[in-house]
Amino acid sequence: MHDALLAGFRAGRKASLARAISIVENHRPGADALLGALHAALGRARRIGVTGPPGAGKSTISASLARHYRNQGLTVGVVCVDPTSPFTGGALLGDRIRMEDVALDPGVYIRSLATRGSLGGLSAATREVSDVLDAFGIDRILIETVGVGQSELEVARTADSSLVILVPESGDSIQTLKAGLMEIADVFAVNKADRPGADRLRTEIELMLGMRPGAASIESSGHHGVDLSRNNLARQVREEATRDDSRWTPPVLRTIGTEEQGIAEVAEALDRHYQYLEASGQLRTRRRVRLRERVVDVVEEKTRQRLWADADTTVWLEARLPQLEAGEATPFEIADALLARSADLLSGRTT
Amino acid sequence: MHDALLAGFRAGRKASLARAISIVENHRPGADALLGALHAALGRARRIGVTGPPGAGKSTISASLARHYRNQGLTVGVVCVDPTSPFTGGALLGDRIRMEDVALDPGVYIRSLATRGSLGGLSAATREVSDVLDAFGIDRILIETVGVGQSELEVARTADSSLVILVPESGDSIQTLKAGLMEIADVFAVNKADRPGADRLRTEIELMLGMRPGAASIESSGHHGVDLSRNNLARQVREEATRDDSRWTPPVLRTIGTEEQGIAEVAEALDRHYQYLEASGQLRTRRRVRLRERVVDVVEEKTRQRLWADADTTVWLEARLPQLEAGEATPFEIADALLARSADLLSGRTT
Repeated sequence: MHDALLAGFRAGRKASLARAISIVENHRPGADALLGALHAALGRARRIGVTGPPGAGKSTISASLARHYRNQGLTVGVVCVDPTSPFTGGALLGDRIRMEDVALDPGVYIRSLATRGSLGGLSAATREVSDVLDAFGIDRILIETVGVGQSELEVARTADSSLVILVPESGDSIQTLKAGLMEIADVFAVNKADRPGADRLRTEIELMLGMRPGAASIESSGHHGVDLSRNNLARQVREEATRDDSRWTPPVLRTIGTEEQGIAEVAEALDRHYQYLEASGQLRTRRRVRLRERVVDVVEEKTRQRLWADADTTVWLEARLPQLEAGEATPFEIADALLARSADLLSGRTT
Repeated sequence: MHDALLAGFRAGRKASLARAISIVENHRPGADALLGALHAALGRARRIGVTGPPGAGKSTISASLARHYRNQGLTVGVVCVDPTSPFTGGALLGDRIRMEDVALDPGVYIRSLATRGSLGGLSAATREVSDVLDAFGIDRILIETVGVGQSELEVARTADSSLVILVPESGDSIQTLKAGLMEIADVFAVNKADRPGADRLRTEIELMLGMRPGAASIESSGHHGVDLSRNNLARQVREEATRDDSRWTPPVLRTIGTEEQGIAEVAEALDRHYQYLEASGQLRTRRRVRLRERVVDVVEEKTRQRLWADADTTVWLEARLPQLEAGEATPFEIADALLARSADLLSGRTT
């Protein structure tokens, strides 16, 4: 379907890259076929998550890291993940301006994901767009999350290594950093390290890291809508990590992003972490987990598509609403009945 | 299963209410049976969404509204929806303190939903906890969203009426308020109305409301992971709304929450909106949509549970990972094969 596009993509044309990403991000017709065609080319790029509270300097450090990699002759992709708020709409885009000088470099490809769908959709989109960049031959992919909350963790999990940036004045005592965040961090940067409180913050992080083994857990389970598949995956990563954990303690580095101080050290720590991932076999585990999560995402998306795009199911459900309204049937009974009649639909036999 | 609990609940015991909510919120065993048992008792409470940007004064106004309703002899439930950030963890809880005097009133029941799951999970939990409060006989349920982004809209959609609170100094020009937010607002409060810019903000909102009919849309479709079911529902609400839209223009009211100014007017506007909903038939439509969304939520939750809790499926998927890693199969092919073999599992024939 996308033969001309694929030819351009494989010839390294940036316009083709941009079109491929648009198709994938917006889930246009043929997105699945396109990702399928690129699947065999995956695995070269290193994916680096960049996360931290608002105002920590994520964009500045991402831009500096991008420059650093360019000086090493590497190509860089930056994926900015921005779960748009209906309130703060345009505000976050101001951050993008800091990227501008880097953006003019033809060896840097920047893409903002303005996806406003579900959290699952956001991490799925990040994974897919990163896949496209990877297949294009980009060397380093920086995945910068501007969001708040669970999305940070979901998105960070799509990376090989996670850089967590904190600042002394953010007012977030280290105690407020949830276990989940400490778990995903492979490298810490204490940014704006010339400000008061920076050394104390570093000490606090290191203290917390010392208490870390086995205590915390990646997932936040036990909650409503608990995602069994992901919990299983998280458990596996954790178990494999526990085996080798003694070999990687996240370094806590000082940076001053606006002056590009400490960037080489961060890049070097990320390189070391990557070597550690390779040597310990964890890289393969992380990538296997990522592939499995891809399947889980696709399965859930297909399930939704098959069920709710089906006119017959819609009519059937509509006809049961009066019973629901009258309190004669519960949503659970209707849901069971709906699934009982949807075997062929869900399994794809009728599509 | 929950016979004793149900007896206490029906006798109006608050301890039973608290336990029922905990079971439902954390999706403990028997949650579905419990909700099923309460289903016939639903429909008495009025559900009022309270939303707005951080710092707009949502908690203050919720507390004042609760006091107002108490003075009218009504019981009040407050559901605080707080998609916890791993960064700002405890910060938002400070807001809860403003509720404290109201919280001591036995006619007020306050519950914070700390659910950190998916967005879908958050609105599902809100709907379910509100259902429990409704079945308990609570008269007014205030659903206060502290989150940012899409979750505001999802959660607001579980209410009968939505109060949107804005403040002059929030720096959010009305242009940055996305169409979705304008669509869900049934009543606007311009809070901190004694500050500069308040009148200008009111004028801007009224101007925007004047341009409103048909132009905007509830859903943010076209994005990745687009939820077909919800788009259909949103469309239906919109279509029905368009028929009657000439009859309800959201009033834009002035409030000074800290001085309880304008609260009676807000309560009165919400009452008028409820009467409008009843008279126009929209109340029934909104509640039908909510019931249908409940079924959709339950179906999707059951699908996930059945698939990913199944050991056989896990083993099957695990065995295909080497093909995925080698690039011999794509996630789409594996997903299709997985669904093809899961007909009995998904339809509930084997569970």
